[in-house]
Amino acid sequence: MSAPKKVVLAYSGGLDTSIILKWLQTEYGCEVVTFTADLGQGEELEPARKKAELLGIKPENIFIEDIREEFVRDFVFPMFRANAVYEGLYLLGTSIARPLISKRLVEIAEATGADAVSHGATGKGNDQVRFELSAYALNPDIKVIAPWREWDLTSRTKLLEFAEANQIPIAKDKRGEAPFSVDANLLHTSSEGKVLEDPAEMAPDYVYQRTVNPEDAPDAPEFIEITFEKGDAVAINGEAMSPATILTQLNEYGRKHGIGRLDFVENRFVGMKSRGIYETPGGDILLEAHRGIEQITLDSGAGHLKDSIMPRYAELIYNGFWYSPEREMLQALIDESQKHVTGTVRLKLYKGSAKTVGRWSEHSLYSEAHVTFEEDAGAYDQKDAQGFIQLNALRLKLLAARNRRVK
Amino acid sequence: MSAPKKVVLAYSGGLDTSIILKWLQTEYGCEVVTFTADLGQGEELEPARKKAELLGIKPENIFIEDIREEFVRDFVFPMFRANAVYEGLYLLGTSIARPLISKRLVEIAEATGADAVSHGATGKGNDQVRFELSAYALNPDIKVIAPWREWDLTSRTKLLEFAEANQIPIAKDKRGEAPFSVDANLLHTSSEGKVLEDPAEMAPDYVYQRTVNPEDAPDAPEFIEITFEKGDAVAINGEAMSPATILTQLNEYGRKHGIGRLDFVENRFVGMKSRGIYETPGGDILLEAHRGIEQITLDSGAGHLKDSIMPRYAELIYNGFWYSPEREMLQALIDESQKHVTGTVRLKLYKGSAKTVGRWSEHSLYSEAHVTFEEDAGAYDQKDAQGFIQLNALRLKLLAARNRRVK
Amino acid sequence: MSAPKKVVLAYSGGLDTSIILKWLQTEYGCEVVTFTADLGQGEELEPARKKAELLGIKPENIFIEDIREEFVRDFVFPMFRANAVYEGLYLLGTSIARPLISKRLVEIAEATGADAVSHGATGKGNDQVRFELSAYALNPDIKVIAPWREWDLTSRTKLLEFAEANQIPIAKDKRGEAPFSVDANLLHTSSEGKVLEDPAEMAPDYVYQRTVNPEDAPDAPEFIEITFEKGDAVAINGEAMSPATILTQLNEYGRKHGIGRLDFVENRFVGMKSRGIYETPGGDILLEAHRGIEQITLDSGAGHLKDSIMPRYAELIYNGFWYSPEREMLQALIDESQKHVTGTVRLKLYKGSAKTVGRWSEHSLYSEAHVTFEEDAGAYDQKDAQGFIQLNALRLKLLAARNRRVK
Amino acid sequence: MSAPKKVVLAYSGGLDTSIILKWLQTEYGCEVVTFTADLGQGEELEPARKKAELLGIKPENIFIEDIREEFVRDFVFPMFRANAVYEGLYLLGTSIARPLISKRLVEIAEATGADAVSHGATGKGNDQVRFELSAYALNPDIKVIAPWREWDLTSRTKLLEFAEANQIPIAKDKRGEAPFSVDANLLHTSSEGKVLEDPAEMAPDYVYQRTVNPEDAPDAPEFIEITFEKGDAVAINGEAMSPATILTQLNEYGRKHGIGRLDFVENRFVGMKSRGIYETPGGDILLEAHRGIEQITLDSGAGHLKDSIMPRYAELIYNGFWYSPEREMLQALIDESQKHVTGTVRLKLYKGSAKTVGRWSEHSLYSEAHVTFEEDAGAYDQKDAQGFIQLNALRLKLLAARNRRVK
Repeated sequence: MSAPKKVVLAYSGGLDTSIILKWLQTEYGCEVVTFTADLGQGEELEPARKKAELLGIKPENIFIEDIREEFVRDFVFPMFRANAVYEGLYLLGTSIARPLISKRLVEIAEATGADAVSHGATGKGNDQVRFELSAYALNPDIKVIAPWREWDLTSRTKLLEFAEANQIPIAKDKRGEAPFSVDANLLHTSSEGKVLEDPAEMAPDYVYQRTVNPEDAPDAPEFIEITFEKGDAVAINGEAMSPATILTQLNEYGRKHGIGRLDFVENRFVGMKSRGIYETPGGDILLEAHRGIEQITLDSGAGHLKDSIMPRYAELIYNGFWYSPEREMLQALIDESQKHVTGTVRLKLYKGSAKTVGRWSEHSLYSEAHVTFEEDAGAYDQKDAQGFIQLNALRLKLLAARNRRVK
Repeated sequence: MSAPKKVVLAYSGGLDTSIILKWLQTEYGCEVVTFTADLGQGEELEPARKKAELLGIKPENIFIEDIREEFVRDFVFPMFRANAVYEGLYLLGTSIARPLISKRLVEIAEATGADAVSHGATGKGNDQVRFELSAYALNPDIKVIAPWREWDLTSRTKLLEFAEANQIPIAKDKRGEAPFSVDANLLHTSSEGKVLEDPAEMAPDYVYQRTVNPEDAPDAPEFIEITFEKGDAVAINGEAMSPATILTQLNEYGRKHGIGRLDFVENRFVGMKSRGIYETPGGDILLEAHRGIEQITLDSGAGHLKDSIMPRYAELIYNGFWYSPEREMLQALIDESQKHVTGTVRLKLYKGSAKTVGRWSEHSLYSEAHVTFEEDAGAYDQKDAQGFIQLNALRLKLLAARNRRVK
Repeated sequence: MSAPKKVVLAYSGGLDTSIILKWLQTEYGCEVVTFTADLGQGEELEPARKKAELLGIKPENIFIEDIREEFVRDFVFPMFRANAVYEGLYLLGTSIARPLISKRLVEIAEATGADAVSHGATGKGNDQVRFELSAYALNPDIKVIAPWREWDLTSRTKLLEFAEANQIPIAKDKRGEAPFSVDANLLHTSSEGKVLEDPAEMAPDYVYQRTVNPEDAPDAPEFIEITFEKGDAVAINGEAMSPATILTQLNEYGRKHGIGRLDFVENRFVGMKSRGIYETPGGDILLEAHRGIEQITLDSGAGHLKDSIMPRYAELIYNGFWYSPEREMLQALIDESQKHVTGTVRLKLYKGSAKTVGRWSEHSLYSEAHVTFEEDAGAYDQKDAQGFIQLNALRLKLLAARNRRVK
Repeated sequence: MSAPKKVVLAYSGGLDTSIILKWLQTEYGCEVVTFTADLGQGEELEPARKKAELLGIKPENIFIEDIREEFVRDFVFPMFRANAVYEGLYLLGTSIARPLISKRLVEIAEATGADAVSHGATGKGNDQVRFELSAYALNPDIKVIAPWREWDLTSRTKLLEFAEANQIPIAKDKRGEAPFSVDANLLHTSSEGKVLEDPAEMAPDYVYQRTVNPEDAPDAPEFIEITFEKGDAVAINGEAMSPATILTQLNEYGRKHGIGRLDFVENRFVGMKSRGIYETPGGDILLEAHRGIEQITLDSGAGHLKDSIMPRYAELIYNGFWYSPEREMLQALIDESQKHVTGTVRLKLYKGSAKTVGRWSEHSLYSEAHVTFEEDAGAYDQKDAQGFIQLNALRLKLLAARNRRVK
């Protein structure tokens, strides 16, 4: 890789990415463009602008954007159409944000004439893979600088020394080491590392930042209704809202009722296991509701096919292959299935869980006339079941006869 | 089908199967053998013996058996090794009991020289399919009599008239129609029909029979530990127990904490949708715990393969293909994966949910040395990630370059 | 089912469907509309018109159509995009024609005010299922009459008696029984039954109707080039042609070189095995060519995903579920993959086989710069493979270490 | 990686691995153990012993073994039980040999106290991955030296200079560059690189080494019979043979009739496409025969499940994951299916193709009584098809009714 001349950095404004910013300037001697995004992580962005300016970034090289709507509309919602969960339980909150960040990094690089992008992910995790695969898929000639894989600032002490030597302001609470590491966006907050590294030990209460403890949630359940159109949530309790507003609202419901906590040991793409604490308050509610509306609007052929490809789809997102032909092919399949996933679900929220308790739709495939215990009105002839069973049994009978014969 | 001479009836001792018993005697003029099993449904069996005798069944033709251990050991546990859920949520409580009942029906037929079996499932449901596919798979020459598909007793009134005409005792509470229909065994209780037929309407509280309402569950969480060996639960809180004892105990924990309720609309194999209320108190806990122990004892290759075949495995059980080559092939795959699924999980039970909060095992694949945020002790070279990403990205770069070129 | 008043019959003009025509008139007393399609089966259609008139069908009730282009464009080509083969070998020649015939039957029923459709498929085969599932999927209220499952004309003798009694002309060669049964269309000819019923016996030479014996094919190979656009063949040897023309031409190449013969035992959807002789001269060439062009234009992610869903897609078509949400979902996935499947393949045709010997495309992903044995020009850094292998190996090392530890 | 002290080298006796041998001695200063295996590649092994001695290897450090039987019995045959083909066409001839070589390397390392293994695969191909993943899976502490990724002998000239400088004898025909690169074993010969690098160009005739040109094959077909037991070939024309003998014989049949040639562009695991010419004379015959015997001995449930997992199984072998939990899980599934895959297949071999023309077995599931066109003897009631179709159609009707309603 020839030396990069201008690099777009995914910049949070925090200590670590400020150090990276400085390190890029000093180590590579290259011009730095900063990109700071509001993905719903719950932090002010303007301080990042100030800090970037302080570190010598030209105003025209500072990009600060609210991309929450794009995030939910084009990434979170398409993923939820698939009911995607990784390894049975994880809602992919971190994974789904990376491709969008990379997309903007690459676009800003093209807009500013930069030839490289850079990120603050470590060499042990999945995020480096997700950032970089996305970047390369969008621009095969882009260079990627991953400082954590390159530099020798491999301890907290060395980082702080570098910061001091380079006049990077250090917030008081960053002097000591954080007891765990955090990622957050509108979909979730994840915590991992340090105090969480022993998977036998229960996570301490202070790790949870996004939800109340179920024990502290209201003692009475709350009921809400979510309306879907073609697989996407469009209204809560009858009130139409934008994608990001819906997720924000559901997060608030989830937070209040202690919904969406997950203590999880997962398999990283890079080959090791890690333990994380995830909080996905709105996401858990949304997943339950989406399943609820699919129950009456998808037929078994569509539903079972979706179920069977879901693990692969989730794995692709987890591993960083959002911008891959196979993810796009699976998305085409999933989106094709959602044409009639329109209707409303009622949920009960109570002390840590969200449960579907009712669902209705103009597009419903549920037929009381067929299923009723009452005497038939001709919709279904029970005698048909005889032939259905006989022909389904035929191969089993032939097998049984063969197995008898050769024994 | 030539006329059956002797038929083994799955006999509960209740009104409906007593009517079937009589109907078989009068309609087919054949000798009836009754089979009444304790699958953990929570009913006394001896009354069934008395009633069978009353209806003229010879003592040697009355079979009453406690098959709870076989049920859990050979059916429930193998299924839980797969983390099987149907359509994302249903734990297959009814489905998994049917093959065992059919197996005993066929075995008793062979032992008593009967040439037919009979069951009380209706012509609209899945159970007829499960009973009959299992029977034919075990004995290709067996005849199956499904009275509900044959007779003209198609209303409550006609059934009661038939009962009265044939001196079948009718319990007072059976005079009126039940407000819904119930199936129960050690794994679960399901309720469906009548008051539950509108999927938009919340199920009334009195439907739930096996669990307390989460609102009425204890206000303090309870923590338990489940130990697994090769994928099967073998102990609770360090105390070794038989399979059925473990499930019984977990049911009690679940009942108390309101765990395992599911309001569900599913796709029946026979082509229609139906709505059911399921209670699987111990099953929900067991599934969560099994996932917990797999998190540290299965590697990603094994886990992801299991996840990808699970929906098909669950569908096979749901559809009645327990005794099919493909279920057995999938079971071989699943069992192969469980050799090291040994260890202990700690769970928090609280107001409707069971959550893993810790897990440990001699067989753990989790390596703190690899995942730690601390400085590396050489277990993992972060620079390896560079090559890993480059080669994973290569095809994406080639795609991006091609797509640019042809645009 | 209430009695049908007017029925659209899939009418070949042959003896069997003429008997059905008469039987519908006499048995059901209903008006009959005939539909005779040119699907490339190689028979004149006008005799069918004459015969229908002779049997009393009104001119406005006789529909004769050449649907070869629609057949290839909307059914055969979409299927070939998937490289669909059933049970490893069968190119689904019969299966893929049925949905189109049903579609026209239903459309003609709607146009003529008919309330039923009828077909000449037997009660043992797959075709009845394919016809009827398609019809019901397109019009849930349509009635279907399947005479072979209803009538008592269950032997050749009875059929001929019925024909004679009803003045249906019987061609001389139809007096005796055909030695096997044939289905044909532009994609294939299949033969089954009678002399072919013993799968141990080699099929006699006279069964093959569509291809020369490879031993009699030319002694010199012939080379042809097929050009694809977005997954569909559009030209042969540089000459652009319509879909049906291309398939017709490929059939001629295949016939001449003895390509596309298959002696096969398959699993019918209705539960039994059957043995068939298939001839798919053009189809075999097309499949080979499509694979050839995909080799350079699809990347591994897309190709492997396609391969993994193909068996399910083929099974759906075989079983008659062309008009099902899951087939449409899979088609969406497949079509998404074909955007760049554009280019040309050279094939060698010789004595029974068609083999790709060259392929090229503007859309090629093949990169000589990357794969070359020559010294690298920087496209690929061999050292990257080190990290790639290390991280792929990590979980295997952790497994090996665990397995050692617990032994 | 600390410096290795003693290394086991996969040694062919050829120029390249002799250079590696010397380079290991000089560069790493470590003791070298050589392993030369007869995998059926058709070369004398004793010259390798002589050359190793000449290069200073102690007699006790020279391992020369005939592992053909183990290769076919434990690797080739298990793979053929799955009908495994990679990307639709490739029989995995190279891929399947690598795990066995690695196994012996690791075992010899353990036996001789070596701490490393080494191979001659380049940094661009799949073989490095296969060798190394296998080695790490069998011994997590083994070191692997891959000279082609490390050294600076990156051109033919440099290699020859190194050889001369180190007194390594150079055969005359190795002075110039080979026009392509070859891998061979009992299952196949592959050729790639240089003259084959343009996938548009037909491979020159001299590339093929293992089969006659179909044009030069006998003008008369030859018929052979292969007998299987539990999925493995055990006899040809009624004569029982060992696994390796069977494959050797089939290779001779295939060579003579020009069977098993494949011109292929594939996706390497390392991300690029490559073009190869494969010759698998016996393998092509064996695959066709195995499919033939499965046609009558596997039921549809087993067969379709096998088909659906086959692409993943093949990909695992291709990518080097033979020793992985998921390959072993899939093998358990496959082996479970083969219990009754016993019987005989007759094949016609003629000018480039092997085709099944008959098959029979005591374990056959084919039932003439069921499939016959003759009047039924009661084995099958055609009226059952009515109910079978109705219930399969039910969801399609409900869909059609819904879609009408909401339009």
